[in-house]
Amino acid sequence: MLYPPYIWHIMKQATLPSQRNFSLGYPASEKIYIQGTLYPYLKVPFRAVHLEDPEYPIYYAYDTSGPYTDKDIRVDIHQGLPRLRAPWILSREDVEALTHFSTKLGQEIYENPPPTAFPHPHLPLRAKKGRTVTQLHYAKAGVITPEMEYIAIRENQRIEAYKNKEKKLPRFHRGQGWGAILPDEITPEFVRQEVAAGRAIIPANINHPETEPMIIGRNFRTKINANIGNSIVTSSIAEEVEKAVWAVYWGADTIMDLSTGRHIHETREWILRNTPVPIGTVPIYQALEKVGGKPEELTWELFRETLIEQCEQGVDYFTIHAGVRLAYIPKTLDRVTGIVSRGGSIMARWCLAHHKENFLYTHFEEICDILCKYDVSISLGDGLRPGSIADASDEAQYAELRTLGELARIAYEYDVQVMIEGPGHIPMQLIWENMQKELEDCHERPFYTLGPLVTDVAPGYDHITSAIGAAMIGWFGTAMLCYVTPKEHLGLPNKEDVREGILAYRIAAHAADIAKGHPAAQWRDYLLSRARFAFRWRDQFHLALDPERAQAYHDATLPAEGAKVAHFCAMCGPKFCSMEITHQLRELAAQKGLSETELIEVGLSEKAQEFRTWLP
Amino acid sequence: MLYPPYIWHIMKQATLPSQRNFSLGYPASEKIYIQGTLYPYLKVPFRAVHLEDPEYPIYYAYDTSGPYTDKDIRVDIHQGLPRLRAPWILSREDVEALTHFSTKLGQEIYENPPPTAFPHPHLPLRAKKGRTVTQLHYAKAGVITPEMEYIAIRENQRIEAYKNKEKKLPRFHRGQGWGAILPDEITPEFVRQEVAAGRAIIPANINHPETEPMIIGRNFRTKINANIGNSIVTSSIAEEVEKAVWAVYWGADTIMDLSTGRHIHETREWILRNTPVPIGTVPIYQALEKVGGKPEELTWELFRETLIEQCEQGVDYFTIHAGVRLAYIPKTLDRVTGIVSRGGSIMARWCLAHHKENFLYTHFEEICDILCKYDVSISLGDGLRPGSIADASDEAQYAELRTLGELARIAYEYDVQVMIEGPGHIPMQLIWENMQKELEDCHERPFYTLGPLVTDVAPGYDHITSAIGAAMIGWFGTAMLCYVTPKEHLGLPNKEDVREGILAYRIAAHAADIAKGHPAAQWRDYLLSRARFAFRWRDQFHLALDPERAQAYHDATLPAEGAKVAHFCAMCGPKFCSMEITHQLRELAAQKGLSETELIEVGLSEKAQEFRTWLP
Repeated sequence: MLYPPYIWHIMKQATLPSQRNFSLGYPASEKIYIQGTLYPYLKVPFRAVHLEDPEYPIYYAYDTSGPYTDKDIRVDIHQGLPRLRAPWILSREDVEALTHFSTKLGQEIYENPPPTAFPHPHLPLRAKKGRTVTQLHYAKAGVITPEMEYIAIRENQRIEAYKNKEKKLPRFHRGQGWGAILPDEITPEFVRQEVAAGRAIIPANINHPETEPMIIGRNFRTKINANIGNSIVTSSIAEEVEKAVWAVYWGADTIMDLSTGRHIHETREWILRNTPVPIGTVPIYQALEKVGGKPEELTWELFRETLIEQCEQGVDYFTIHAGVRLAYIPKTLDRVTGIVSRGGSIMARWCLAHHKENFLYTHFEEICDILCKYDVSISLGDGLRPGSIADASDEAQYAELRTLGELARIAYEYDVQVMIEGPGHIPMQLIWENMQKELEDCHERPFYTLGPLVTDVAPGYDHITSAIGAAMIGWFGTAMLCYVTPKEHLGLPNKEDVREGILAYRIAAHAADIAKGHPAAQWRDYLLSRARFAFRWRDQFHLALDPERAQAYHDATLPAEGAKVAHFCAMCGPKFCSMEITHQLRELAAQKGLSETELIEVGLSEKAQEFRTWLP
Repeated sequence: MLYPPYIWHIMKQATLPSQRNFSLGYPASEKIYIQGTLYPYLKVPFRAVHLEDPEYPIYYAYDTSGPYTDKDIRVDIHQGLPRLRAPWILSREDVEALTHFSTKLGQEIYENPPPTAFPHPHLPLRAKKGRTVTQLHYAKAGVITPEMEYIAIRENQRIEAYKNKEKKLPRFHRGQGWGAILPDEITPEFVRQEVAAGRAIIPANINHPETEPMIIGRNFRTKINANIGNSIVTSSIAEEVEKAVWAVYWGADTIMDLSTGRHIHETREWILRNTPVPIGTVPIYQALEKVGGKPEELTWELFRETLIEQCEQGVDYFTIHAGVRLAYIPKTLDRVTGIVSRGGSIMARWCLAHHKENFLYTHFEEICDILCKYDVSISLGDGLRPGSIADASDEAQYAELRTLGELARIAYEYDVQVMIEGPGHIPMQLIWENMQKELEDCHERPFYTLGPLVTDVAPGYDHITSAIGAAMIGWFGTAMLCYVTPKEHLGLPNKEDVREGILAYRIAAHAADIAKGHPAAQWRDYLLSRARFAFRWRDQFHLALDPERAQAYHDATLPAEGAKVAHFCAMCGPKFCSMEITHQLRELAAQKGLSETELIEVGLSEKAQEFRTWLP
């Protein structure tokens, strides 16, 4: 079944999302769903890519795009996505439906929606008194949740479909996992164990039931995050929703909404209701807006209110810069680029202004106590990450990392899921050390790194400088890679920058999966290379991470339809193709009824004359 | 002194280069020349980038662009570039000027130039009978040539200019060289020693005196090569010359002309006469054209003639696929993508058709005997390089590598300079092994690798998949990285693709230099990051590897001239900048006459109340 190339409805200049519906489709692909076993109502999505390969007619791709690529669903972004997990959550009978939002702002917008508000809001859920509703809590109790089975099916990427053959399997390279242990088959129980051990997290706020469950941990597929969000300088709600949908289409596993301008609450609501992946935020950003941009006026009470506001909207993970301790700030003063993390800088300013310990640190247990009622995960922010090669791996960075490790222990006691944020700018020779320190100091909690950028000298190309570092640290053990777009250091990314950033990071993550030995990873390379060798151009395009660009680049020199089955390309031209010699030899073997080895023996033997006459 | 942004004259649709002259310029930069000491007539070029940094007003960039960026030289591509090295070569008194070209084709085109011919050809030089004119020959004899002193000055990148200060030097990270030994200062004698040991080569054909000397070896700056060249399907001479100039402008250290279509000889001549960097070719490509594209009709005599033809034109290095031995061909038959090297495939076909050992292997000593008369270096081609992740590091690849090591020994006896070609598609976990095997099997001869691509799944983005592998293998010891453009596997690159490929590879090479500990590398990062922290936007643009793009991306959101001195960017907006806190603290320290440490002590002490009142 072939679908036409995707159609993208551009909503130019709109401040609010237009009335248009989204409908996306990858070429030669159809959305299929695999049923659960423990939970037969589960429908785990894959993109089935139809190939002309006689031996492997279908490739099953991990699919982050959600209902947008299901031809049977027309998404109306004013209604939001189907609320997939709502019945799973309710069936656990540990949550209560609230009759109003717990925060003033949440309730105000609900009662008197401004023109920018999402038109179909939902009242929030919260854990019943005394209950904890996190995936970590269930995992520790030995419970395999529907989310866990969903993830197990999703992570296996249906490789069993390629193996039910008489033919022997292709030889794949063994991975080098640096201590990561990737099983040949990921079972629901394995997912549970990894979550219970704190080595993996499932960001899944009970108020974001639109999420298709996914897992972040080094013994799973390497994930990528795309940052979006407006600032006071640029961008509108419509653009941000469009970027979010665009991001999951190209392969973002999670999205962070880093908005800092106006309408933060409403922008986030539109994004949450319309994305099938976990959403992360940095709540201190919104808190800062509430105090007019003056960090010293921040208070724990205001921050607490903001947390609850976002918990009830459905944010799946919060970056919390609780490791920026007062005593670490002096360590950054002789840096080349000081403090570059926005959250880190806000907290440093607060600490100095009040001469007090960071209130996120001192109130950390209270934070955990709130979050465990909604299953919001914590991403422990690296407020002191290095912003230049010169500042990499200094005492400030590592002191903070050790504190993050302590905090991770506390969160674990509250059954709150945690990952650790890291890198920034790190030269290649220090990447391995960074990963090792994280594993040791933070007890193998999932590492979530920005890049790292391996040089400072290429503004305009920092998706590439950082994809180099990201691939390496992904191989060494980072569980999720936070993308960098070509606009990093220069401005906010537009839609095309989002695509460029995601593609660079899908490459890095996939390369890391091959290198660490994810059992499903090398199949895509194998099938694409088979297609390349057999001159099945369309299969090459369809298996490419960006099918559209692959085809466009090919067609730029050879646009004719016939060229898509031609046994040559524009690189060598039609007269001589490098790969042809191997084809000729194989054909000859078939004609003569010889195995490849026998054929070569003939070729190498005294019958050479005869052999020569066989050649075309 | 500020120059306007470069002007680029596009020559659309032309089959031959137009009458226009090229004139290029980097922003805020001027070409300066440093005199030699041993050879005071040497003028070694640098790009002096003028900065607004009060402590470091100039950055000296390694400059591959040649006379095109010298405002005192107007290059007329119909005349060719100044013949810089001609007097150096003649002064050695070991060459003779020929009165005609030694090959029929060379002489024919000289006598009866077709309309496509370069209009001002030069008659060739050749070593006097019994003499060897290679840099390796001189190096072994203990002679420091002008080329060697030129290279020493060039490689040091004037870092001494930053050090004549009372101020203490910034702390830079130590490199991890994996056995590479990079001295703090590169002396002419060090250059000689490295060449004499065969660990580095100086590609410098006596008939390409337009070349500005450069060196390829792992104890030097990592180099990059850009492939250009037309095929029968596309491209014209004019486009290829334009790509060559464009390539050196963006930073290509050498260029390979891989033309396979019509007018190979003339295209090469235009490129040679107009490029200030070494030019490499794959002579078997032209030989194949001469026999109508039928590999089995190739002969040693025809190949020999082609070698001499190209030696006399001035090609600086030849890729020669002498390691594709008959016995290795069967080892490729069960590969996923067989033989993907064009040269490798041609020779495989020849070997099988004749049932004979590769004539490049059997005649290798005769090849050396020709090349040592012109100082053409050999790049031992990896005809059996893997074309897919599945085929990486197999027995075919490594068997050929061992043969390349044997051949390198033979060439050394003939005083012919040699480098070894490698990778292709290699997963990350096997890159280190590849580098180690090359160092062992090929006695530390310079490694020259294509990428490697670390996954097969991203056609359209293979400059990125391969920059990841290139950065890593560059760090591990590869001396020159052969670029890959976004069009790889899909079509021939156009001018913009060349730029994208080069930038990705300059990033990889620079990251490798930082990681392996090149003493000059980290200065650029340091100065750019200082500019970033001080909000000197223009300095950031001017220090960027691609100044034009950096500025364009910044201006896309903040085009006003005032934004180039603004203490914010479009990412956070004007209300809160992360880096501002460190600035405020430093200003405060200055006002109060305290050191940074003292300031923080105050901040941390009981005087906190006072401290707070100080803050803006």
